[in-house]
Amino acid sequence: MIKNESDILDYIQAKINTKSPNVVKSIGDDCAVIRISNKQSFVITTDTSLEGPHFTKDYTAFEIGYKSLSTNLSDIAAMGCIPKYIFMSLTLPKLDTNWIKSFYKGIAAHVEKFNLALIGGDTNRGPLSISIQVIGINKSKILYRDGANFDDDIYVSGKLGLARAALILKNKKKFIKEFNMLKKHLHMPIPRIDAGLKLSKFANSCIDISDGLMKDLSSIINQSNCGAEIYLERIPTHRLLKKLIPKSKYYECLIGGGEDYELCFTVSKPQRKNMQLIAKNLKLPLTIIGKITKKKILFKENGVEKKLNIKGFDHFS
Amino acid sequence: MIKNESDILDYIQAKINTKSPNVVKSIGDDCAVIRISNKQSFVITTDTSLEGPHFTKDYTAFEIGYKSLSTNLSDIAAMGCIPKYIFMSLTLPKLDTNWIKSFYKGIAAHVEKFNLALIGGDTNRGPLSISIQVIGINKSKILYRDGANFDDDIYVSGKLGLARAALILKNKKKFIKEFNMLKKHLHMPIPRIDAGLKLSKFANSCIDISDGLMKDLSSIINQSNCGAEIYLERIPTHRLLKKLIPKSKYYECLIGGGEDYELCFTVSKPQRKNMQLIAKNLKLPLTIIGKITKKKILFKENGVEKKLNIKGFDHFS
Repeated sequence: MIKNESDILDYIQAKINTKSPNVVKSIGDDCAVIRISNKQSFVITTDTSLEGPHFTKDYTAFEIGYKSLSTNLSDIAAMGCIPKYIFMSLTLPKLDTNWIKSFYKGIAAHVEKFNLALIGGDTNRGPLSISIQVIGINKSKILYRDGANFDDDIYVSGKLGLARAALILKNKKKFIKEFNMLKKHLHMPIPRIDAGLKLSKFANSCIDISDGLMKDLSSIINQSNCGAEIYLERIPTHRLLKKLIPKSKYYECLIGGGEDYELCFTVSKPQRKNMQLIAKNLKLPLTIIGKITKKKILFKENGVEKKLNIKGFDHFS
Repeated sequence: MIKNESDILDYIQAKINTKSPNVVKSIGDDCAVIRISNKQSFVITTDTSLEGPHFTKDYTAFEIGYKSLSTNLSDIAAMGCIPKYIFMSLTLPKLDTNWIKSFYKGIAAHVEKFNLALIGGDTNRGPLSISIQVIGINKSKILYRDGANFDDDIYVSGKLGLARAALILKNKKKFIKEFNMLKKHLHMPIPRIDAGLKLSKFANSCIDISDGLMKDLSSIINQSNCGAEIYLERIPTHRLLKKLIPKSKYYECLIGGGEDYELCFTVSKPQRKNMQLIAKNLKLPLTIIGKITKKKILFKENGVEKKLNIKGFDHFS
C-alpha cells in the first residue's frame, strides 16, 4: 500500500533503476548531482507549484512566478551551489496577457538577480501548474544531507515560522496589519543562494526548510545516521509570533510549519568564528539551535526535555 | 497581446535572459544543449502530459506512464542523442496504489529498454499532471532544426497519421476492430531513439513530428532559412487510412495531425545508400517525401501543386 510521498519514493527505488555511473547523488537529497568533470558537477532540482498547497487565489501573478522559482532556487542553495539554467513547463487555464506578463516578471526578478538563463520548457492548457527545473554548478564543495558529524553545531539561517504564521493570520480581520507584515515571507520567500555558497566551504551537511524544521532536520539525522539535541528557546523567530500565535500552535508554527525556505545546516565547532563572519557579511542571522548527538532527536525547552507531537508537511497524509 | 504558444515564447525571448556562455542551444529546438566539455554536451527536454491534450480517461495507467516518457524521449531522438537521466514531477489527485504501480511500470518499460536512471523529482496532490525532464548526451553530432541544406532529401521515419486516425475512429462502434489496430500508435508511441542515433552521423537537420508534419517541417524550414517541396503521395501511412478516413480529413490526418512521434529529417543526396542501410538494419521505413528548396513550402500531389489549409497543433489556438 502506498500511503504517502515517502512510500512512492520507496516504491520507485525498489522497482526502477535510480543509479548511473556519473550520478553522485540520485533521489533523496534537495538536488540530484551528476559529475561532469573532475572538479565540476551539475546539481539539478525540479519542483511543481500548484494552487492550494503552494499558492492561493490572493497571490498576484508576480508572486506566483517569484515563489515558484524561489522554491527551486532554495534547493540549489541547500546544496551550496550556483544556480545557472532554468526550464519551465507551464500549464495555464487560459491565455491572459496581463497575468502571463506579470508572472514572467516574477521569474525575471530572480533571473536578473542571480544571472540565470531560461533555456527550455513547454506550455500547455489545463489547471494552473508550474513545473520548474533548475540546474546549478558547484563553486567548491557540494553540501549533502548525509554529512553531519557528531558534535557539529546545528544552525538555521534567518527566522523560522513566519510563513506559517502569515498563513494562520490570513483572513483574520483583527490581524490585517500583522498579516501584511509577515505576508512577504509566505508569498515571496528569499532563496538563500548567497548563504549556501558562503557556507559550502565550512558546513558538513545542509537542507532547506521547506517541509518544516522537524521533518527536514530528521532527513539530515536519518541520512547522517546520528541524533540531535534542539534547544527550542534558541530557534530564531519574529517577536510577533509569541504575541499572536496561540501557545498550542506556537511550536507547530516554528518547527512543524513548512515554507520557511531557510537553510538548516551543521558545522563543526571550530568554525564558529567563520559563521559569525558570514552572518555579518550577509546581514543574515545564522543561529546555533542545537548540536548533533549520537542518536534520536531530543527537544529541550530551557534545559528540560519537551515531547512534541508534530509532523512535517506531506502532500498526502 | 499573447494569443498562442509562439507569442509566449516571443515574450520570454524579449524579456528574459535565455543566453549563457555554455548554452549551445536555448529555447527553440526539441532540446536545450549545454556544452560540458570539448566533445560532450547535455541535451535537455521537459514536457508535461495532461488529461485532455495528451491522454484521455480510456488510457490505462501503464499507457499514461509509457506515453508521458515517450514524448520526452522523442525529443532526445530528434537531437540524435542518447537519453540518460530522468526527473519526474508527478501531480496526483489521490494515492491509488494500483494506479501508481501500473503508471511506474509504464515508465520502467522505457527505463529498462534504454538503460535510463530516474534520479529526481517531486510528488504533489492536485489535478493529474506529469512533468518529465530527460537529459541525454551526444554520441556523435547533435542534430538541430536549423541545419537543412539546399537540395537535401526530406525523410520521415515510420508511417504518419496513425495516431490521428485512431483518435478519429475512437468511440465509433463500426470501427472497433480498426481502432484496436491503430490504438497503440496513439496510446504508446515508440520514441525513435535508435533511428536518431544512427542518423546523427549523416543528417543535416531533424525534428520530431509531435505537432504534425506541416507545423514541424515549417520549424526546420524557418530555422534553416530555406524552402521545401513535399510529394504528398509519397508520405508513408497505413493502408487503412485511405479506406477509413473521409477524403476531406485525409491530409489533415497525415500532415496536420500531431502525436506521430516519428522523425522528420534532411540528408544530402549522396547519403541515400546509407539511409537505406539504416532502414534495413532498424526494420523501420525511412521514406523520402520531398526535398529542400530555396524558399516556401510547396505541396504537390502527383506532380500538381495542391493548396492545403492545415494548421499544426497549438494548445491555445
